[in-house]
Amino acid sequence: MNKVKVTLWPDNREIWASRGETLSEALLLAGYALETPCAGRGICGKCKVQILTASAGIKAASDQLELYASEWQHLSLDEIQQGYRLACLMVLKEDVKVSISTEFRDVLRKTIEITVPGTETSFPFNPLVYKVFLELAQPTVADRMGDWERIERGLVEKGFFPVTNQVENGLQLDGDVLRMLPTVLRAQDYRITAVLYNGKLIAVEEGNTTDQMYGVALDIGTTTMVGALIDLRTGEQLGVASLTNPQRSFGADIISRISFGSQGSSQLQELQSQLVKAVNEILQELTGRLGVNQNHIYEAVVVGNTVIHHLFLGLDPTYLGQGPYVPVVTRPLRIKARKLKVKIRDSGYLYLLPNIAGFVGGDAVGVILSTRLHQSSEIQLAVDIGTNGEIVLGSAQKLLACSTAAGPAFEGERIKHGMRAAFGAIERVTIEEDVKIGVIGSVLPKGISGSGLIEAVAEMLRVGIIDVSGRIHSQQELPSELPLAIKTRVVEENHRREFVLVRKELTSNGKIISITQEDIRELQLAKGAIEAGIQVMMKELGVNKEQITQVFMAGAFGSCMNPVSAQVIGMIPSIPLDRVKTVGNAAGAGAQLALLSRSARKQATKIAKEVEYIELSARPDFQEAFLASMYFPKIT
Amino acid sequence: MNKVKVTLWPDNREIWASRGETLSEALLLAGYALETPCAGRGICGKCKVQILTASAGIKAASDQLELYASEWQHLSLDEIQQGYRLACLMVLKEDVKVSISTEFRDVLRKTIEITVPGTETSFPFNPLVYKVFLELAQPTVADRMGDWERIERGLVEKGFFPVTNQVENGLQLDGDVLRMLPTVLRAQDYRITAVLYNGKLIAVEEGNTTDQMYGVALDIGTTTMVGALIDLRTGEQLGVASLTNPQRSFGADIISRISFGSQGSSQLQELQSQLVKAVNEILQELTGRLGVNQNHIYEAVVVGNTVIHHLFLGLDPTYLGQGPYVPVVTRPLRIKARKLKVKIRDSGYLYLLPNIAGFVGGDAVGVILSTRLHQSSEIQLAVDIGTNGEIVLGSAQKLLACSTAAGPAFEGERIKHGMRAAFGAIERVTIEEDVKIGVIGSVLPKGISGSGLIEAVAEMLRVGIIDVSGRIHSQQELPSELPLAIKTRVVEENHRREFVLVRKELTSNGKIISITQEDIRELQLAKGAIEAGIQVMMKELGVNKEQITQVFMAGAFGSCMNPVSAQVIGMIPSIPLDRVKTVGNAAGAGAQLALLSRSARKQATKIAKEVEYIELSARPDFQEAFLASMYFPKIT
Repeated sequence: MNKVKVTLWPDNREIWASRGETLSEALLLAGYALETPCAGRGICGKCKVQILTASAGIKAASDQLELYASEWQHLSLDEIQQGYRLACLMVLKEDVKVSISTEFRDVLRKTIEITVPGTETSFPFNPLVYKVFLELAQPTVADRMGDWERIERGLVEKGFFPVTNQVENGLQLDGDVLRMLPTVLRAQDYRITAVLYNGKLIAVEEGNTTDQMYGVALDIGTTTMVGALIDLRTGEQLGVASLTNPQRSFGADIISRISFGSQGSSQLQELQSQLVKAVNEILQELTGRLGVNQNHIYEAVVVGNTVIHHLFLGLDPTYLGQGPYVPVVTRPLRIKARKLKVKIRDSGYLYLLPNIAGFVGGDAVGVILSTRLHQSSEIQLAVDIGTNGEIVLGSAQKLLACSTAAGPAFEGERIKHGMRAAFGAIERVTIEEDVKIGVIGSVLPKGISGSGLIEAVAEMLRVGIIDVSGRIHSQQELPSELPLAIKTRVVEENHRREFVLVRKELTSNGKIISITQEDIRELQLAKGAIEAGIQVMMKELGVNKEQITQVFMAGAFGSCMNPVSAQVIGMIPSIPLDRVKTVGNAAGAGAQLALLSRSARKQATKIAKEVEYIELSARPDFQEAFLASMYFPKIT
Repeated sequence: MNKVKVTLWPDNREIWASRGETLSEALLLAGYALETPCAGRGICGKCKVQILTASAGIKAASDQLELYASEWQHLSLDEIQQGYRLACLMVLKEDVKVSISTEFRDVLRKTIEITVPGTETSFPFNPLVYKVFLELAQPTVADRMGDWERIERGLVEKGFFPVTNQVENGLQLDGDVLRMLPTVLRAQDYRITAVLYNGKLIAVEEGNTTDQMYGVALDIGTTTMVGALIDLRTGEQLGVASLTNPQRSFGADIISRISFGSQGSSQLQELQSQLVKAVNEILQELTGRLGVNQNHIYEAVVVGNTVIHHLFLGLDPTYLGQGPYVPVVTRPLRIKARKLKVKIRDSGYLYLLPNIAGFVGGDAVGVILSTRLHQSSEIQLAVDIGTNGEIVLGSAQKLLACSTAAGPAFEGERIKHGMRAAFGAIERVTIEEDVKIGVIGSVLPKGISGSGLIEAVAEMLRVGIIDVSGRIHSQQELPSELPLAIKTRVVEENHRREFVLVRKELTSNGKIISITQEDIRELQLAKGAIEAGIQVMMKELGVNKEQITQVFMAGAFGSCMNPVSAQVIGMIPSIPLDRVKTVGNAAGAGAQLALLSRSARKQATKIAKEVEYIELSARPDFQEAFLASMYFPKIT
């Protein structure tokens, strides 16, 4: 048994932790945010807790407990005998009982809950960035300490420990920060704000700037890039901006970008600088609109699939494009913003959520994190639908993930009258006496969005305009009970059959909007890929659709899709609708969580390590399922 | 009492350590190099030692000892009961006895002693750079681990732990290393050499390159820069190269460089790039001559005074030039070579020894380290003579350091016939029946070197050509017993008196070489500054010259100086000559020690923290001593 039980007394709340973890780590994962300025190095002594024996109730457990050298410095002999310890040093080896009576409650920072829309997910609020305002003593003949050492002393006095003991290995202070020190220190008479990142100094600012502290969550999709500006003091999302991924000029699908990026370093650089440029445009839009100084953004958390991850960092994607699809790195990475020329604070950090495998990246980790699939006691399914469909299935016990190329059909590409979900796009379609449509912005329609396409096809299937093979019936073949108004919408030109959704008099450009036979084929490929992926995952996990208690539909597109239509065309399993939830941009929400919560970041790392990746392309059963899934389900 | 005693059994060798240090740190400082691939994080379990009670002899001391979680993983229950522990985790709280019987001796790596010329100093050989050759398994469908994770696994299998547990804070892998990974891994079928720096990956190379591993020790003086190329496998010094500091064009003294560097960032950048350019020339000369690839140099340890330190890093020197003379930073720094464009391995490190104060830098730390003044039980004095004179006085109990502007006279500047100690320079002068000179290279003399000047003046003083005020007697005033051949060498022109050392017939350019009255004044200023500095230091420490058991004369100039002459003119205290030693470039030797020995680096950090800095300029007693020291001592 590799788990130990931590009982919180007197509430008797029980939490489970891995053997070998420290108590503070376990509390953090369970959502308790300990105030530990020293970042768990046993230096500050703020995480003092009282340990009770697991068995003997309130009796202090001092006999069984180890004592570390630094605990002697922070605890009195009385306290030691009463079982007080530092939570950050206490390694969990067996079940323990921890008193959360008065003293302990005092050390719990007020936990701001960050909630993800559509889920009951919440995390403690404890971002890595922290600001400390310091009013330092000015140097004198008797106190001629160096500028950096002066700041360090000021931080230590406030309970922060910016330097570890192993100073002899050399401080790695940011060169630019060091160069600015003399000027910044003296600009306002040694009144400065120190910016700490995980306890280490990353910037120094003149005067008191503690009210200006921002972060950015970036979701770089194959087709769409979204950035959210977050106030790191409150966790509040101040604004969102998005852009089309400029790499689309190299092809809508991810494979064509691997090919281009594999051609050589100048091509790779081109792909990288395109992404960086677009990220900077998003940042400029956000900071301009919200009146925020880019230098006050200290961290950007980035999610994307593994290929995007590699291209953003300028890592060779060659081996992502050929079996066994090996990424250069899967672990979470931290990079100075300056190195990638991303326009947040130069000395700030970019943090990339870990990858799971060759095609399933930090975006899937973000989806899992924000839907908390990894903590679910029952089987749940999350489908993030974009150019690639990421599918995650399982529970806390075991999670499977795969990626399947849905293609760009859902985003309006390769569809005759397809368009993105913007003003003038048909989003809702019902077929009754005649065709009824809902248009974004309530204007004359210009085209049809991905979700409109799915609704249209689902309706066409329901009323019998197409059959399970996707074939559009000729007017003669149509069910006789269909109204004439509908029947006459099936038209044929050059042996190409199509179904007119909107007649030319009612469109913005005077041309009809229709669903062609080819459009339906494209949709069949896209939905078939996802449906087959889900089937293989269910088979791999050994579950049937009745066991799935929850389906999360995620992604800009997945979220505005009508779950009923998705079930009608067979894309997602037909389970009771109250078990299907749309959760918006869950990958981006995951990035926000990681930005705001160390606990979330820790969990993300765990998720990436533990999720089992299923490579669909290598499996004959996927090919088989894919062929079968091109068909639509029978309407019963 | 903040010290604890560690007794090594059965040798009964006793070493003293600071309370709170770990046993492995204490052993390291005492010169025992433990083999700890995990860098003392309790992961590898290789530093297993047996602790005996301090009092009860061989009886194992398991009762009193704490046990850390990771010790359970590396020690059997039997071993625990016998008192075995991991030295890297054992915090010293009281006196202990450690068994160095069989098992313990096994974990002691063979200590290569690095000896500094002229001293009995030696340190254990354990550089931070280490290379590991790996033959990795190639990826398969069943093993599609990322490239970096594959290397990490290979390292772990060999007992190295390149990553700490806190992965969720994000790996900070060198971007260039990451970008090269896919190519390097596949170039020789997954046979690679990993370059570790303090246990962390800094480079990956194709195939087996473990026989190519170099470092550089750089001593950047105000006037002269010296670089030594070191083989990091053996500690052997392969070659030395030197250059004149190009910043001399801004003035020979350090104050003029502070002024120029304070004018603005472009001036500062100019000073910095001059230094970097010169360093790169030295590197090119060394690598070219010795046939070493610059990419196989992974670390450069740099020493210099605090102003040079700041200029090399591009740090604003303004506040070094005005009271209270505050440096930007004193701690040791580590910087990627790429950032300063120093041409060793891009992802390698520059390591700058710590500064002591505004004018006493890593060069003085290097002098102390290599002369081991900080470990001396008796009072010792080290004088590093260059454009600045650094003076260190004291013992293990207390060390004082100061800097005094000796000016460039010792290096041949502002002396009428002065020159550097090169071919044709007069180095030795004796005055008996006539003047006898020794010339470098045994050629016709061109001028006089700094040490030649000191000998000449010492002799002139001894035989009575000048008096204690430094005044050259007129021929009439000269002691009557002086031979005529000497008397006629005092000549006068335009009321300027000088002493002809070499008549024009015997010089290389047919002009006389003489010592002028002005030359003597310059020398008086230079030697007076050093003499006064030493006096103030002695007063501050409360010692007299009889208590000084050893004088080290260091620096390119200090080393070739005749100690007798130095005493005659009063520059160094007149103590028995067998207590005066010349130790060559002791600052550079300190840099070499830091490059080769973690223990030395650790000690350097301690030295910089503990040495007490004396600011001479602020003291009236220095001004007074300085005025008095202009005089020469009476000849008795």
